[in-house]
Amino acid sequence: MEERRVSEAVIRRLPKYYRQLTALQKEGVERISSGKLAQQMRLNASQVRQDFNCFGGFGQQGYGYNVDNLLEEIRNILALNRTYKAIIVGAGRIGTALVNFSGFAQEGIQIEALFDIDPERIGQTINDKPVLALEEMEDYIRKQKISIGIIAARRSAAQSIADKMKVAGIKGIWNFVPMDIVEEGIPVENIHMTDSLICLCYHMEHSDGKRRRSNA
Amino acid sequence: MEERRVSEAVIRRLPKYYRQLTALQKEGVERISSGKLAQQMRLNASQVRQDFNCFGGFGQQGYGYNVDNLLEEIRNILALNRTYKAIIVGAGRIGTALVNFSGFAQEGIQIEALFDIDPERIGQTINDKPVLALEEMEDYIRKQKISIGIIAARRSAAQSIADKMKVAGIKGIWNFVPMDIVEEGIPVENIHMTDSLICLCYHMEHSDGKRRRSNA
Repeated sequence: MEERRVSEAVIRRLPKYYRQLTALQKEGVERISSGKLAQQMRLNASQVRQDFNCFGGFGQQGYGYNVDNLLEEIRNILALNRTYKAIIVGAGRIGTALVNFSGFAQEGIQIEALFDIDPERIGQTINDKPVLALEEMEDYIRKQKISIGIIAARRSAAQSIADKMKVAGIKGIWNFVPMDIVEEGIPVENIHMTDSLICLCYHMEHSDGKRRRSNA
Repeated sequence: MEERRVSEAVIRRLPKYYRQLTALQKEGVERISSGKLAQQMRLNASQVRQDFNCFGGFGQQGYGYNVDNLLEEIRNILALNRTYKAIIVGAGRIGTALVNFSGFAQEGIQIEALFDIDPERIGQTINDKPVLALEEMEDYIRKQKISIGIIAARRSAAQSIADKMKVAGIKGIWNFVPMDIVEEGIPVENIHMTDSLICLCYHMEHSDGKRRRSNA
């Protein structure tokens, strides 16, 4: 399947299609029209068709989309049919919550180890994963061929950890520190939970009674 | 200060200004130009000026912005100078991670209790907060004047929990269930961590060596 240049907005919608189609498959739905899918996802039908056209289009006029096929194609586009090895830097509350979260394994993300600078934490295990000394991180990334670096460390250390990860060969960074990390040449996703909470409070204070829905 | 109608994009940037200015204040910086602030945040100077103009503008030609004043104004706009009572529905891994996360208290969010349907969990405490039976939720919201409902329950139950929260008088919903919750009349923020991870994997597979940075 030939791929065109795809906009960030379309890429951001792909996981939502993936979630919705997974739910439909579980319900035993075999095929669905772009109109019905759009309605369920609160998009419009022509946008749904346009989005799928970016990847070559999978629908058939008058039939709609075969749910199994479409889901498989989206899994391929999203590269969800493979496994990624990941490490977490920072074995504090967020790092611990992440290593305990079972949702990653479903998406093929395997957490291999955590890293920290606190001697009390180093040598422990969390959910059967070892907590290692931060100075060992670069060697570990190289030897274990780690592709995803998850950062849940202190703000002041975050950018330098990201820099070291990149030099050691990390392919992508998932950042939970409340600042935007930038690395030339590799993708970075910044998760700012507190920003989302702050936007919620803003809307609560400035609510005009209309429907509001936001995706962080 | 008079507020104009503010676009969602500007609202989404406010927490980032808030974070950056908080960091500057901690570093002892007293004033900053729009150009410098823009550079630090990888925006452009005219965008920064336009954003602040939405709220009346706080700068002075040739002087720049006073960091303390600007931060205080943004705190006011974001309604961060007050306290919100919150509950969490779902005392599983995500609910537990959230109640253990200290960052909310800093933003004035006070978690009062968790709710669950699992008899093993009901009656326990997590980080000193009681886990109560879900059927008590609506009464609790009314009596304790809870304003924020955090949902970390099963997918199939999420929308009906949100509906009950709204009827009981919740002012805003923060959703961690991997589906988009919609409630007419009250703001909802959906946090989809897995979507962000999936987008990261997509960019890793389709990386063209250019800088990529995304904010979830």
